Amino acid sequence: MFKKILIANRGEIALRVIRTCREMGIQTVAVYSTADSESLHVKFADEAVCIGRPASVDSYLNVPNIMAAVEITNADAVHPGYGFLAENAKFAQICNENGIKFIGPTGDMINKMGDKITAKETMIKAGVPVVPGGEGLLKSLDHAKSEAKSIGYPVILKATAGGGGKGMRIVWEESELERAYDTAKVEAAASFKNDGIYMEKFVEEPRHIEIQVAGDQYGTVCHLSERDCSIQRRHQKLVEESPSPFMTDELRHAMGEAAKKAAGAIGYESVGTIEFLVDKHRNFYFMEMNTRIQVEHCVTEEVINFDLIKEQIKIAMGEKVSGADYYPQMHAIECRINAEDPYNDFRPSPGKITNLNIPGGHGVRVDSHVYAGYTIPPYYDSMIGKLITVARTRNEAIDTMYRALSEYVIEGIKTTIPFHLQLMQNEDFRSGNFNTKFMESFVMKK
Amino acid sequence: MFKKILIANRGEIALRVIRTCREMGIQTVAVYSTADSESLHVKFADEAVCIGRPASVDSYLNVPNIMAAVEITNADAVHPGYGFLAENAKFAQICNENGIKFIGPTGDMINKMGDKITAKETMIKAGVPVVPGGEGLLKSLDHAKSEAKSIGYPVILKATAGGGGKGMRIVWEESELERAYDTAKVEAAASFKNDGIYMEKFVEEPRHIEIQVAGDQYGTVCHLSERDCSIQRRHQKLVEESPSPFMTDELRHAMGEAAKKAAGAIGYESVGTIEFLVDKHRNFYFMEMNTRIQVEHCVTEEVINFDLIKEQIKIAMGEKVSGADYYPQMHAIECRINAEDPYNDFRPSPGKITNLNIPGGHGVRVDSHVYAGYTIPPYYDSMIGKLITVARTRNEAIDTMYRALSEYVIEGIKTTIPFHLQLMQNEDFRSGNFNTKFMESFVMKK
Repeated sequence: MFKKILIANRGEIALRVIRTCREMGIQTVAVYSTADSESLHVKFADEAVCIGRPASVDSYLNVPNIMAAVEITNADAVHPGYGFLAENAKFAQICNENGIKFIGPTGDMINKMGDKITAKETMIKAGVPVVPGGEGLLKSLDHAKSEAKSIGYPVILKATAGGGGKGMRIVWEESELERAYDTAKVEAAASFKNDGIYMEKFVEEPRHIEIQVAGDQYGTVCHLSERDCSIQRRHQKLVEESPSPFMTDELRHAMGEAAKKAAGAIGYESVGTIEFLVDKHRNFYFMEMNTRIQVEHCVTEEVINFDLIKEQIKIAMGEKVSGADYYPQMHAIECRINAEDPYNDFRPSPGKITNLNIPGGHGVRVDSHVYAGYTIPPYYDSMIGKLITVARTRNEAIDTMYRALSEYVIEGIKTTIPFHLQLMQNEDFRSGNFNTKFMESFVMKK
Repeated sequence: MFKKILIANRGEIALRVIRTCREMGIQTVAVYSTADSESLHVKFADEAVCIGRPASVDSYLNVPNIMAAVEITNADAVHPGYGFLAENAKFAQICNENGIKFIGPTGDMINKMGDKITAKETMIKAGVPVVPGGEGLLKSLDHAKSEAKSIGYPVILKATAGGGGKGMRIVWEESELERAYDTAKVEAAASFKNDGIYMEKFVEEPRHIEIQVAGDQYGTVCHLSERDCSIQRRHQKLVEESPSPFMTDELRHAMGEAAKKAAGAIGYESVGTIEFLVDKHRNFYFMEMNTRIQVEHCVTEEVINFDLIKEQIKIAMGEKVSGADYYPQMHAIECRINAEDPYNDFRPSPGKITNLNIPGGHGVRVDSHVYAGYTIPPYYDSMIGKLITVARTRNEAIDTMYRALSEYVIEGIKTTIPFHLQLMQNEDFRSGNFNTKFMESFVMKK
């Protein structure tokens, strides 16, 4: 049993961990940069230690300062939250070597999933589906043809030095391949001075659906069903929900088993998430594993009535996980409330909150570290809260979300609340008809 | 389908009703006294009408003013909340006669349960257990003896003009009866100038346990299990929970069936509550029926995942209730947060809230109409919020409650938060070892 946990993080996730620790009777130590001295995570921890200047490298990423805080407060475990040092294998190792339990997987497990090539190889060996292709540069048109045959159309050609869509071509059938191959090479050469291209399976209308897992040190892994995170903007998730409106019982079973294989392949210990791309035919492909708690863990907590941080701490204390999997009993949605201006390309909007009303009532959960009078510092992530609603059906969860958003008053700064209000009324969103491209065509109404 | 509902109430319950209406797409009208113009229920309603001066008789109890507000806003239904006009049969009749749907039972049903003697007679006829005895004044010691024999010991003698324990005697066996009879009569005469006494069954270590029911206009009644409201002070409930730590499956079944009989006996239509006293032997006795939504309805909502206000509105629109009963899936506790000083005999403490932090996170629900800067008027009930926690087990719900209470900051006034913090640590409370007498011996620690 841990006596005292130091939370090597800030903001809402630090407060989230403090809450569970208090419920478990575990003392807490907050750390904070000089920019965060007024945050709720500092006020609600049993102890708080300043670890440096605002820049993350000077504070939340500063391992010596954090280890010094561990030492002076005599903490016996460290919770890393998400971001910052949460997937830093070296930090996990340093903690464990100093007799301080890192609440998460070992450094070795983090490394195995952190290196994308190693991870993909491990998944292939474990029998977890990955996006076919991408194994080397194409040497010729004939090579491209044979690759495409083995991967199966549609395929996508990508520039090895690429980015931003340059040198990219989708090919739906062999008759299109020659022209696509030539133009992709020319464009790649022109854009990146490197005409190397490779081929992957093209995932049609992809959804981002992930499976929450929990594994213990005795080799048991269970899954806790899925979260749909397809509403994202430039790979930043905006809204998450569980269950996915696209899910079927068969697909959940198949993805759950694949996720357990993925975690089992590295002997994973702690809670973690296997992220998949799912195409419109319900084929799914491993993207990556997040070896930490995720921002969107709350939707899983609400649909299965389960405290994932408590589970994480218990696993770190050597407890066993359930041999059975968990299935959603309810429907939950999470909107990330960011200090950003949705009418102005989601530009960050730090500053002082002059007035605040937090929604409440049936089916509403709020995780937030801010309050009226709080000044949001410009140095970190712009997320200032998460609004989660839960109900028996997806439609009801959306209705409750709309109602709760309409009560959420944050004055003094711009927030993403107006965006979420519009999203909750969007017909495609309401009918579950969306994929990761959704935001590319979404336009805010004035 | 109602288009617009006027809420003839104030504070948290008015806000509660507005929330569900918004989720259902129904317009809302708030009414308010001049003392309540800054309340959240006024800010969040679609329309708001001032109905008079602060005194309740001039505003929230002023039927002509409320009916005028209905008329000018063209509302097609009225939700009465609890208190004020919620159990006023005449108001229900006036609404219905004017083609405005009163969201609750008919005036006739309210009357049948409002008159305690009629209610008791109806229950006896329906086969619902009531506290035996109490049917007339005792004419002599012999009369008392025969009454006690038919009721069964222990019995209690009470002064018909009494109150405050004067003229009251508990009698455990016949050998004690003569002395008790004589002293009760003398004391009654001395205290009230009326020596009339009557006899009732003495309910040992009584718990207050109530059953939530819902009935529709087609004659179906279902129950939604129990709430334990034994933690009360001078008949004011302070804490409620579901399930009751004293409950067994057999008792829940028996009480549930009795509650359905009770509601069925008057053809009850709407949501309502049958309150019972339960003795230490798990005998239960009908006390009264509340023909309205109750303050503590939230604990039921959380353990069965159900919106009782939505149900109430749907029933009023002519929808059917479920033919099946509902059983708790979780454990929920509600603490009433009152503007009262628990260190000073719970004296009311109205005034301005200068600083406010509302708890959040997993398993926490807050229903409150106040905010930082809000001034609590001295004219009404002192309740300023309800804090509800929900978890898989009672112990976890208590742990979450303690954690949430410790985050609940309300400055500028005194509140009952310190009392609840002490209660959550009380060994008898934690072990479920309490009854309605609990608060008589509870002393606040400094």
